Amino acid sequence: MRAVVCHRTELTVEDLPDLTPERGQVLIDVERCGICGSDLHARLHCDETAADVAELGYDHFMRSTDRVVMGHEFVGTVADHGPRTRKQFPVGTRVVALPVLRAGGSTHLTGLSPLASGGYAEQVLAIPSMTMRVPDEVDADAAALTEPLAVALHAVRRGEVGAKDTAVVIGCGPIGLAVIAMLKATGVRHVIASDFSAGRRALAERMGADVVVNPADESPWASFAESKRYLTEAIALADLGIDAMDKLRAVPLLPWAHVMRAAEKAGATPRGPVVFECVGIPGMIEHVVANAPLLSRVVVVGVCMGEDSFRPSMAINKEIDLRFAFAYDPSEFHQTLQWIASGKVDVRPLVTGVVGLDGVAGAFEDLGDPERHAKILVDPTS
Amino acid sequence: MRAVVCHRTELTVEDLPDLTPERGQVLIDVERCGICGSDLHARLHCDETAADVAELGYDHFMRSTDRVVMGHEFVGTVADHGPRTRKQFPVGTRVVALPVLRAGGSTHLTGLSPLASGGYAEQVLAIPSMTMRVPDEVDADAAALTEPLAVALHAVRRGEVGAKDTAVVIGCGPIGLAVIAMLKATGVRHVIASDFSAGRRALAERMGADVVVNPADESPWASFAESKRYLTEAIALADLGIDAMDKLRAVPLLPWAHVMRAAEKAGATPRGPVVFECVGIPGMIEHVVANAPLLSRVVVVGVCMGEDSFRPSMAINKEIDLRFAFAYDPSEFHQTLQWIASGKVDVRPLVTGVVGLDGVAGAFEDLGDPERHAKILVDPTS
Repeated sequence: MRAVVCHRTELTVEDLPDLTPERGQVLIDVERCGICGSDLHARLHCDETAADVAELGYDHFMRSTDRVVMGHEFVGTVADHGPRTRKQFPVGTRVVALPVLRAGGSTHLTGLSPLASGGYAEQVLAIPSMTMRVPDEVDADAAALTEPLAVALHAVRRGEVGAKDTAVVIGCGPIGLAVIAMLKATGVRHVIASDFSAGRRALAERMGADVVVNPADESPWASFAESKRYLTEAIALADLGIDAMDKLRAVPLLPWAHVMRAAEKAGATPRGPVVFECVGIPGMIEHVVANAPLLSRVVVVGVCMGEDSFRPSMAINKEIDLRFAFAYDPSEFHQTLQWIASGKVDVRPLVTGVVGLDGVAGAFEDLGDPERHAKILVDPTS
Repeated sequence: MRAVVCHRTELTVEDLPDLTPERGQVLIDVERCGICGSDLHARLHCDETAADVAELGYDHFMRSTDRVVMGHEFVGTVADHGPRTRKQFPVGTRVVALPVLRAGGSTHLTGLSPLASGGYAEQVLAIPSMTMRVPDEVDADAAALTEPLAVALHAVRRGEVGAKDTAVVIGCGPIGLAVIAMLKATGVRHVIASDFSAGRRALAERMGADVVVNPADESPWASFAESKRYLTEAIALADLGIDAMDKLRAVPLLPWAHVMRAAEKAGATPRGPVVFECVGIPGMIEHVVANAPLLSRVVVVGVCMGEDSFRPSMAINKEIDLRFAFAYDPSEFHQTLQWIASGKVDVRPLVTGVVGLDGVAGAFEDLGDPERHAKILVDPTS
């Protein structure tokens, strides 16, 4: 099969032996595979990630000296099954799958390990029970977006965002844009998005953001100008609480919930927004901790490698939650696919380019320009 | 009135004018006031905190050049009420109060602002509706512990700890010990506590910790040795999930909850522990992120001033929550007082000394030795 091999940061198209499904594996002819920001990162810095995950007991993450076929956002058609393997879907069925593979007695991350060849190739292997049929109305381009959208759905769930909450999305790269789509799909009424790039701000609008700001001109935190002033806010709440208690002549047995309701009625904002940090560069956590309002729940989706520093005392003053989010579970993956099929999320604006295997190396470079691209898909059949 | 004044880090006993309650204030004759770790910190580093909270819109936190009467963990008897102020409790009633005071058109932190004189004094002012009667069976020593125990109850609530969760308390100073007491009071069955000090480990046992370790000899994370290995664990879960799905011949519509239950039955630990960081020195967040198991929910109670650094990528790999906790609300304060009264929490082991106003400066020094002291109370009447 033809495949893109990553070796010492170089991406080259090579002819590799065809894949043969073993027991418990299904062979898929790849139709499309999305290029993920973590692939861009892994190409240059996989040794750092490999060291991190080795500390956690997994020794088979790709290293720069490995020869790895990357790509974990794939869709394709069932081509074959391993011996004594349940044939869940007939040959020819269009499927997506969670990018995990059992091989050599263990389970590996497809496209991020030399032991599980990825989707920048004509063929890929998957686990039948982690494989899902793509509904007929979904084309291959849209289906390839299942994986990154599932990451976004998981992040939104980690944030426990309610319809009445305000969500603030910092950074409108592919994951930030996917988060915006999933926030709107789950009924969140007020989504503020922020990015320095005009191209990405335009995409943020298309994905449904209610307010889109350029942080060079306007702060995404502007609408919280008052409520972010923690002590002012806390004092306003305390005063309202005292007023409520005095009015009711209640002893302080009165539940605080009552005070919070009274404060809300009086126009205070006792609940903080849910913030999605989708940039993932050093300093972003401190930026959010310093600027986000009181009681913000921050879902950290952007992966920042290496050490990063912030002020814990400020996070305490504001009672901030930092919830770090990783991947998704099979039910979230399945839910995402169904929402793409039903049109509840429209992923098409995200796709800004399709390349063949020969175009992968160039696409990795092009994705560095936020004005031109969000998601580029690889079509190994072209 | 006699009071301890903090000025340029010096603590001296002075004769100050008696306090006069204004409208909406109640005057309390102080019986006891606990010395809090944040007072020790504020004496030396209040300018740093004042700068932090000024950034949040509050300009009246104590500065080293102010003359401040500290102390916010007070109990006493009602002495007088301001004019046109509802007399919630008769003169002589023993009360505790949330340490906030309305003065000069704003609300201030009692004992941490020059505008709201604190409890290291014969008298203190409070807001009637934030004042609670101490049940007859509670003596002044125990009642003075209401405030720090309320901090602990709030932290436990922030952690959403269930009875079946494992809780890990890192650091057994007064707040760590109070957290242990509140975890047991709320029915948490398995509490692991860790401290380098033998004296504090002994107190941790008295407060009800089920396992107490000296981290110099034994890791508090030892019992999670396997589960902390994130990818090993994730792979085990994935495998169990696949087995469950295969066994049921289920398409991946099967909710992931089923997989998690299957994993739990098979002895895996899909839910992480709840960790309480009660040390508050630089490096503790990275320590917890590096060592805590997969899916740990970390409540940060220890206040670390200045910048601190950690690896966000590791927090993402493990999907860790960092929940920063601050103070309490009136219902938690009230609940704590009731639990002290009913004996649900026994605070007496925490009190390791009582001093008069003349002894406050010495007590601030003595509290530096964890072997000798946990909580020292000030008795301004002695």
